[in-house]
Amino acid sequence: MEKECIFCKIIRNEIPTPKIFENEKFLAFLDINPVNFGHALIVPKEHTETIISAKSLILREMLPVSKKIAAAIMEARKAQGFNLCINNYKAAGQLVPHLHLHVVPRYDADSVTIDKQKTKKYLPGEMERLASQLKEILMK
Amino acid sequence: MEKECIFCKIIRNEIPTPKIFENEKFLAFLDINPVNFGHALIVPKEHTETIISAKSLILREMLPVSKKIAAAIMEARKAQGFNLCINNYKAAGQLVPHLHLHVVPRYDADSVTIDKQKTKKYLPGEMERLASQLKEILMK
Repeated sequence: MEKECIFCKIIRNEIPTPKIFENEKFLAFLDINPVNFGHALIVPKEHTETIISAKSLILREMLPVSKKIAAAIMEARKAQGFNLCINNYKAAGQLVPHLHLHVVPRYDADSVTIDKQKTKKYLPGEMERLASQLKEILMK
Repeated sequence: MEKECIFCKIIRNEIPTPKIFENEKFLAFLDINPVNFGHALIVPKEHTETIISAKSLILREMLPVSKKIAAAIMEARKAQGFNLCINNYKAAGQLVPHLHLHVVPRYDADSVTIDKQKTKKYLPGEMERLASQLKEILMK
């Protein structure tokens, strides 16, 4: 745990965030600046910067967890595809130095670029509603 | 194995490709249309379309293998960061329907977008030289 890391603060419940999934090792929540609605982040609870510094166990479990979450997002957002993306280090567009995997739901011709250039804004309450829906799907 | 799948053909050695790593379950090779030089693809040898259809064992081993390859690419290309990206389904930009993870070396202010919009061209022999260098690093 890093005192000033924003994702560690989210993990410690110091910043309210629409969480969608949690297990012993990972937390998933909606990105507040989504490139498409339903854009989620999956983070290991133990602070580590990139996949280079991550423990083997985290590396082994990160994709299985992400698959589960991506399938739920596809269902809730009626998406036609999704990107999984891990940006490692600042030069690669990593904005928060705590390992995180982006799940971005995609649609034919949605003209999204997975780099965080154009983000969207949720309407008030919309993000919380989507988070509840995802939580329900993921608890099934 | 799918008869007409281009990645299955690469795995079966029917298409010459600058391979950089191979083990029982995965093959890694340089992307012929790199968004940055050193851009590599990691594919499971057994044909599957996306992470949704992939077997648990493949999901568990894909990031540990990718970490190893990304570290080698960082070293060989003196990169400052890298993206790992899996595009699932056509709507997400998946061009070949055989699961593949992109490793894209990155540099400060390289203005790369990880979507495959602007690709670069290797000079003759350059790709083969880089593949040999990576193979050497990965055999250490």
